[in-house]
Amino acid sequence: MASEKQEVSKGLEWRIKVADGSSEILVPEAKPASRILLVLKALTVGLASKVWKFLHKAWDVGVDDPRKVIHCLKVGMALTIVSLFYYMRPLYDGVGGTAMWAIMTVVVVFENTVGATMYKSLNRLSGTFLAGFLALGVQWVASQSGNRFEPIIIGASVFILASAATFSRFIPTVKARFDYGALIFILTFSLVAVSGFRVDEVFALAHRRMSTIIIGTTLCIIVSMLVCPIWAGQELYTLIFRNMDKLADSLQGCVAEYFKDGDDADDSTDKECQKKLRGYKCVLSSKATEDSMANFARWEPAHGRFNFRHPWKQYIKIGASMRSCAYCIEALNGCINSENQASELIKKHISDICLKVSSNSSGVIRELATTIKTMKKSSNIHFLVGGMNNAVQELQVNLKALPKLETAENKPTEDQPAAPKTVAAMPLMDIIPLVTLTSLLIEIVTRINGIVDAVEELADLAQFKPASNDKCEKDDQLKNNFLPDQQKDKDSMKVFQRV
Amino acid sequence: MASEKQEVSKGLEWRIKVADGSSEILVPEAKPASRILLVLKALTVGLASKVWKFLHKAWDVGVDDPRKVIHCLKVGMALTIVSLFYYMRPLYDGVGGTAMWAIMTVVVVFENTVGATMYKSLNRLSGTFLAGFLALGVQWVASQSGNRFEPIIIGASVFILASAATFSRFIPTVKARFDYGALIFILTFSLVAVSGFRVDEVFALAHRRMSTIIIGTTLCIIVSMLVCPIWAGQELYTLIFRNMDKLADSLQGCVAEYFKDGDDADDSTDKECQKKLRGYKCVLSSKATEDSMANFARWEPAHGRFNFRHPWKQYIKIGASMRSCAYCIEALNGCINSENQASELIKKHISDICLKVSSNSSGVIRELATTIKTMKKSSNIHFLVGGMNNAVQELQVNLKALPKLETAENKPTEDQPAAPKTVAAMPLMDIIPLVTLTSLLIEIVTRINGIVDAVEELADLAQFKPASNDKCEKDDQLKNNFLPDQQKDKDSMKVFQRV
Repeated sequence: MASEKQEVSKGLEWRIKVADGSSEILVPEAKPASRILLVLKALTVGLASKVWKFLHKAWDVGVDDPRKVIHCLKVGMALTIVSLFYYMRPLYDGVGGTAMWAIMTVVVVFENTVGATMYKSLNRLSGTFLAGFLALGVQWVASQSGNRFEPIIIGASVFILASAATFSRFIPTVKARFDYGALIFILTFSLVAVSGFRVDEVFALAHRRMSTIIIGTTLCIIVSMLVCPIWAGQELYTLIFRNMDKLADSLQGCVAEYFKDGDDADDSTDKECQKKLRGYKCVLSSKATEDSMANFARWEPAHGRFNFRHPWKQYIKIGASMRSCAYCIEALNGCINSENQASELIKKHISDICLKVSSNSSGVIRELATTIKTMKKSSNIHFLVGGMNNAVQELQVNLKALPKLETAENKPTEDQPAAPKTVAAMPLMDIIPLVTLTSLLIEIVTRINGIVDAVEELADLAQFKPASNDKCEKDDQLKNNFLPDQQKDKDSMKVFQRV
Repeated sequence: MASEKQEVSKGLEWRIKVADGSSEILVPEAKPASRILLVLKALTVGLASKVWKFLHKAWDVGVDDPRKVIHCLKVGMALTIVSLFYYMRPLYDGVGGTAMWAIMTVVVVFENTVGATMYKSLNRLSGTFLAGFLALGVQWVASQSGNRFEPIIIGASVFILASAATFSRFIPTVKARFDYGALIFILTFSLVAVSGFRVDEVFALAHRRMSTIIIGTTLCIIVSMLVCPIWAGQELYTLIFRNMDKLADSLQGCVAEYFKDGDDADDSTDKECQKKLRGYKCVLSSKATEDSMANFARWEPAHGRFNFRHPWKQYIKIGASMRSCAYCIEALNGCINSENQASELIKKHISDICLKVSSNSSGVIRELATTIKTMKKSSNIHFLVGGMNNAVQELQVNLKALPKLETAENKPTEDQPAAPKTVAAMPLMDIIPLVTLTSLLIEIVTRINGIVDAVEELADLAQFKPASNDKCEKDDQLKNNFLPDQQKDKDSMKVFQRV
């Protein structure tokens, strides 16, 4: 009978769309039981595909940055240690007793980077101390003033201090450094003030709470610092010089892309190239990360090549100057992709010098990245900057010569009726994109000078050593030297132009 | 004797720099007591000036947005209510008992906006429920498997679940919606699992904890929703249309600033104008706020003119398209401020049409802002967009005519030996900034079309009604009508040009 029905309904099919994009045919059947089964099956498949997608995404996150997985194992480890410690000892006296505070501290304080963990730990400790003492004082005053006024004094103090501490969290300097501390201050003050009913217990309680918080924070700091530590400072530093390289790549790529012939496009290289071209977007979107990393980095002790008072704020300045450069690259990208394209002839004339400017300025950015990476003052940055600025001047000279050349070169190829010698014949519309490109290039060079200044300020503040001429370091230097760098630039440009 | 010493040391002065920038002369005296007094005085003055500055900053924060002050009072109120409730009742049984969870919940969950409070409340509730049930299950299994395996099972489960939950916080979709829930899950699971030593107490404890958390979250939600509520959705909505107005102002201001005569500069208007010019920077820097507000807004119930499933995500898209426009304005600003300035003659020729393009495109952005503000589909947006696109075409025609005009107009004034009719005489360098400006203007218009599309998508998704022709709404409409808007544009342009 079922097959009969199937035959009847052959003209009409019910399809259900499964989350993975495919669709299943829903065969209309008479038995409600089997219909329910089918619906259930479809739901299960849909759910399974959703779960599968989620797991896939999670796997990607893990593969993308394995340190995240390590961080999770670290949290698990710290929690297991503190849990079992209290689980197996007589110290334990029920949830809400001592154990709780240590576990809670570990859960709340343990963060991805050492700096963030330090920030939260120190804020938690100082907030608890300060609020605890203040609350004890208020409580003493309240207890002296008789049963009638006690709740009023307690209530008023909680109201005033909680409001004031909450307000302080809106003030930028407090928010940046003591946001969590203010929260803990409110929490502790309210708890201790309210617990005033049993003054005799309060001191013992405060002592127990403090000691467990100290145990919890110490455990967190030790685990985060000793087991595969992730330093906020190191992260910021890496982010900045990687973004610089990306900026250089996309600047050079953009210009090369504009001047490429467009004949021999290759899909596999094209994808790689497109990814490089969009590198500047990382610069545009990394402001929040830079800010928070710089905030956390100043809580970190000396580590690696960074001492305690490393000028982390300067990295924010460098980031800002890089972003101002990236804005121009964004605009450049827009103009390049717009429909108005310059005529091939004029393009050809100016392409060499434009490519030179972009290659030189990318070279400068790469040298700055190397300066930060090696933490050594570059010996040839001034030479490179000079080269870049000269190239810009050369570009301007070329632009001045452009109309002249235009006429001279146009003469043999031009077969239009208009006299090529008059200004009216000059195809201004044709050169608009090109002029925009050069103008933006010039603006970008100005902004790169801003990055150079910011990096030099960092080199002074952090006392970078000048690049030494030791034998052992020559190899390293050779790689980042002017000529090989230019060669490297040319090679990567070739890749762009080949695309 | 002291005066003798003073005379001797007249040639040499000790100055101490006070934090407010002034410096005080330290008079070397014989008595160490008075010297210490002086140092103390200087320190006190320094500290006082620091405190004063801090208070001044805090005052500014409060004046700038009085709702922040109200929020603080709300937090104080909620905390006082919950504190006194427990303080004055026999429910209270020591810190670590019931009272604690309610106070803690209020401190941790109460946020600035209703959406953020809802997000944290619901996350806290669901995280606690889920983890509590799971922990009870694990504990039962552990208790069945004998004393030897119990700590191993408990430890392993804490390790695995804490690691997994921590990892889930790295997955973008989980991070956006359930970050706090995952934290609370880890916290509750660890607490309940470790508390397993006294199974008999666990159920009573879980019940007490849940009920206090429910009391705390309910109080927070009620206070945040009823006392001067700040809705994340409303904030996002206001941010978007205010930023649009700022974008329009700075686009129009930028172009007007470029073409202004520069004769009659007035300092007081200049400041106002400079502030308007920098409006696009607000657009550049508001990505983080937009993202978090959109995240919180979806937790909010229907309020004002927004229903529960209002398409908040679309506002993020609109914000992104506005930012892509702001990048170009940033580049435009750079080119305008650069040293290469176009000759006044050419500037004059093209200024009218450039001002028209900028005024028309600002008009379009303002109309979009009005569309969002009134939540009504604009009846003349297509007309305005058409006008803007026509102006761009007119600009392109003007550009084509530019070299011709150049020669014609130059003839009488030019007294250079080079023949004005040849292309070589054409001062290309002079028109570079102008061409860049026009090119960027054209690009900006393209990107404004992107904003138009995004806003129209919002109007469809949120089912904005078409602007009605009712009598009572006519007044409102008149203000935002095409002609008066143009008039308004012209007026504000006059201000820019007068500057």
